[in-house]
Amino acid sequence: MKNLDSSSFVPLYHQLKEIIVENIENNVWNPDDKIPSEHQLSEHYCVSRNTTKRAIDDLVQEGVLYRVQGTGTFVTRPKIEQSLSGFYSFSKVLKEKGLKPTDTILEIKVDKVPPQVAQELGMNRDEDVVVLRRLRCANGEPIILETSYIPNRLVGNIDQMKLVGEKPLYDILADEYDILVTSAKETFEPVLIKPADASFLQVKQGSPVLLLERVAFDQRKMPVEYCKSIVRGDRCRFYTELI
Amino acid sequence: MKNLDSSSFVPLYHQLKEIIVENIENNVWNPDDKIPSEHQLSEHYCVSRNTTKRAIDDLVQEGVLYRVQGTGTFVTRPKIEQSLSGFYSFSKVLKEKGLKPTDTILEIKVDKVPPQVAQELGMNRDEDVVVLRRLRCANGEPIILETSYIPNRLVGNIDQMKLVGEKPLYDILADEYDILVTSAKETFEPVLIKPADASFLQVKQGSPVLLLERVAFDQRKMPVEYCKSIVRGDRCRFYTELI
Repeated sequence: MKNLDSSSFVPLYHQLKEIIVENIENNVWNPDDKIPSEHQLSEHYCVSRNTTKRAIDDLVQEGVLYRVQGTGTFVTRPKIEQSLSGFYSFSKVLKEKGLKPTDTILEIKVDKVPPQVAQELGMNRDEDVVVLRRLRCANGEPIILETSYIPNRLVGNIDQMKLVGEKPLYDILADEYDILVTSAKETFEPVLIKPADASFLQVKQGSPVLLLERVAFDQRKMPVEYCKSIVRGDRCRFYTELI
Repeated sequence: MKNLDSSSFVPLYHQLKEIIVENIENNVWNPDDKIPSEHQLSEHYCVSRNTTKRAIDDLVQEGVLYRVQGTGTFVTRPKIEQSLSGFYSFSKVLKEKGLKPTDTILEIKVDKVPPQVAQELGMNRDEDVVVLRRLRCANGEPIILETSYIPNRLVGNIDQMKLVGEKPLYDILADEYDILVTSAKETFEPVLIKPADASFLQVKQGSPVLLLERVAFDQRKMPVEYCKSIVRGDRCRFYTELI
């Protein structure tokens, strides 16, 4: 057992925080594990309840731990980190992290192109789009609510598209329709989740989420997909390397 | 005057929305201009109040317009777009957009390194850091609340650092201390603003903001700065190009 050093210039609650974080990093406590109570921690490390409370409060505030009223304090699942430096596939990112990706198709239909989508995809206003709305999950937990719009003329009938989930969307576009998605533009901004979306993603009303909008281009630089994603802020973090 | 076409398959409220957006794009109405009332618009375009209301409601929801109770409907200032594809300077981005960057230094001091910062910068826990807290504005409007931590040993005394604002921080590091920031890692995630930060950034409590954390490296790949920024979600949008 690691002891706290009361002669150190590092405050005791900081030392205790570090021990807790180390225990999480070393898998002594795993995601969603209940950690010992404040009383137990105080006794174990010979510190006051105030010290323990401050350490736990800090870690809850920092998102490392979470409390369940009347039950205890638990280890937060780590956020899913997603690089923005190159092209990425949500399913691939999850697999690399040992998480199982699953998609639920909420809607798939052919419809008149909405004005904003027509503008993004350079479509005429009387054209049709395939609308594909999916809930994307990691180990069964909903993470992203994604709506893709693809010009209907590119995909003919949408029967093949219904296989999305078993096969990544961009693989279907490549294999069935010879559309190779080779580049994309994405914008993202923080927003509050809309009530209807909150229930799909199983988060509280008013939670902060990332609104991600993508236009994907094929090998001839023609726009082939417009996609709007609502990404859970409590479960995802994006990163980029600037050089 | 552009007329609405009631024989078009495009709903009238959509057509009206497009006219309003065109007027904004063509600078008929500028940011923060008051647009005509619903009554005036309805008469002008010979449509029902319901049609006009639906168009305005949509544009308010989409963030194109905003309402001020009892006063009218106004044009939203466009979001500041910031590329994540390469290195960027906030001041430079603003200047390119014709906005005047100004910084207010909220705090500059030498302090013991906080544990998280020590970890990010690979510092010993008994080392000191320079803490530089700035409110970064565009045309006088607060946009980003930024806290930089720089190992004190790298910058000796901080007198030169006090010139930040007149001169970009990375220019001071280069010119005075031979520290060339050549790369960085950034993570970002959507969060709700903290009450204390809300008053600095002049946004409502509970507004969604982007939390951006950066570690910057010098020419020898040594970490030289850790920076935590709170970025207004209603005023900024980030974008990246994936290839």
